[in-house]
Amino acid sequence: MTRTVLESKSKTVVIGFDEPFCVIGERINPTGRKKLAAELEAGEFGTVEKDALEQVACGAMVLDINAGVVYNSNPNPNETEPPLMTRMVELVQGLVDVPLCIDSSVPGALKAGLETAQGRPLLNSVTGEEERLELVLPLVKKYNVPVVAISNDDTGISEDPDVRFAVAKKIVERAADFGIPAHDIVVDPLVMPVGAMATAGQQVFALVRKLREELGVNTTCGASNISFGLPNRHGINAAFLPMAIGAGMTSAIMNPVRKVEMEAINAANFLMNHDPNGGSWIRFAKVLEAVEGGQSFPEAAAAHASSGRAGGRRGGRARRAG
Amino acid sequence: MTRTVLESKSKTVVIGFDEPFCVIGERINPTGRKKLAAELEAGEFGTVEKDALEQVACGAMVLDINAGVVYNSNPNPNETEPPLMTRMVELVQGLVDVPLCIDSSVPGALKAGLETAQGRPLLNSVTGEEERLELVLPLVKKYNVPVVAISNDDTGISEDPDVRFAVAKKIVERAADFGIPAHDIVVDPLVMPVGAMATAGQQVFALVRKLREELGVNTTCGASNISFGLPNRHGINAAFLPMAIGAGMTSAIMNPVRKVEMEAINAANFLMNHDPNGGSWIRFAKVLEAVEGGQSFPEAAAAHASSGRAGGRRGGRARRAG
Repeated sequence: MTRTVLESKSKTVVIGFDEPFCVIGERINPTGRKKLAAELEAGEFGTVEKDALEQVACGAMVLDINAGVVYNSNPNPNETEPPLMTRMVELVQGLVDVPLCIDSSVPGALKAGLETAQGRPLLNSVTGEEERLELVLPLVKKYNVPVVAISNDDTGISEDPDVRFAVAKKIVERAADFGIPAHDIVVDPLVMPVGAMATAGQQVFALVRKLREELGVNTTCGASNISFGLPNRHGINAAFLPMAIGAGMTSAIMNPVRKVEMEAINAANFLMNHDPNGGSWIRFAKVLEAVEGGQSFPEAAAAHASSGRAGGRRGGRARRAG
Repeated sequence: MTRTVLESKSKTVVIGFDEPFCVIGERINPTGRKKLAAELEAGEFGTVEKDALEQVACGAMVLDINAGVVYNSNPNPNETEPPLMTRMVELVQGLVDVPLCIDSSVPGALKAGLETAQGRPLLNSVTGEEERLELVLPLVKKYNVPVVAISNDDTGISEDPDVRFAVAKKIVERAADFGIPAHDIVVDPLVMPVGAMATAGQQVFALVRKLREELGVNTTCGASNISFGLPNRHGINAAFLPMAIGAGMTSAIMNPVRKVEMEAINAANFLMNHDPNGGSWIRFAKVLEAVEGGQSFPEAAAAHASSGRAGGRRGGRARRAG
């Protein structure tokens, strides 16, 4: 059984075929968030703190950290992003004890994040592009961390799922050349918007099954892409996630501060027999009751978080080699 | 591709691997509804009328009709149920133009329903019990109708999914002896409550896939059984239905007057590429908007029903042989 092991200072999270779905909180990312970008350039971290606490309270088991701000004062991210990544990683791991996902297109920022993160973070990401493979895989090997592998290459993103599978296969094989095992590759098969491509859902479900059966890898995705441009997006997301989980998807990079999507994931965990005795479901139902009673979802979730959460298992951390 | 063809006076509904999920409205059934049972014994049909109109407005493509009232004035259902079935079928098909599902454990009531229903109704149900096979299959053959086949037999309901598969296989084979094709058998693999049996969800998903791949049959279920005894049942149902649809389930006998479940089904149809261009989803999103605005779900659904609904396709009815 494929198991991708992530660690924070004292907590282990396993992404795996026999584990609850791993929710990777996507909020700490200035891309498309002008206000957050401005705050970060000004050295203000209030939003980052709030996003860290809220996401974990709502059920994020891992937090993505992206420091991709283009400073007005200095347009060279190779200079500005690494120290910002260091600062953000230090801040977040001082606040919450969950593994991190170090997310950048800037090599220096990936390295800074890897140097600063405690435990065993997830690296985000490598693609099938030659330059990226040669840049990221040595870091993955050196720091002995798992990595998200996105199924596009130098030709771009293919609409043909067979091509996207072939790209994933190439990355897994190239990683093996570096001595990186398949269980440390978490493939993102790329989710297209179903409003633009009618087969988008079916493509993902078939790809996830194939990636699992033929390459033995865990999978992830940017889940909300599926509903891009459509009305009532949460309704599409909340059906997509259980269907993807049923097909074998084991994680998603998503906004966990969303009741509807988190309810769907909690129910799907139960239906996959990844919630023994329904303990997590019953706790989540209490959160929903509190929301009915007028509390916000993060407030209600935080109030019930002390009683434990799916997948948030504690355990001794094995020291990371490298 | 397996296609189970149902007909009303002028409408054809196909249950099939390449069709939108077929919602069979379960409401017109006095089992566990004391008030409805008393009304029916008193010859009052107001609730039946309301249930027929509301269910179709909300998206039911087929209506189940069960006349199983034990009269206080006459405890013999063999005498009372057949004329009541006739009356209810006449009433419902006078009000709404959808195929019916004739549901009874009383042979005379099945016959009365088959005699009275226009078009090609679904018969509900045969089981693997010897007596039931010998009683129902000749009716299925004589009236040339499809039938729901429930996977229990004289030994009861097995908790072992392999046994339930074997019972379904036996029914399909026995039907073939009568000249009834597999595409006219809609198998109910039996959904257990996940609160009582942790593997209940996985059992159904695996069984549905196997029934489809090995026997080539359509499937149905009493969808809400999955959440029996649990808090926030709609949340479980709304994840179960998309997962079952993803596994290949093609219909369910369920309450369609439930926004959350119908939203999940509409989204799943879209994600299975059974809602070309998302037209049904976009219409459904308007219903949800009207509900947000304060309308009840049946009211909002009825207001938008005139613009068409998934699967409610009109077409010339072929005359039924036999």
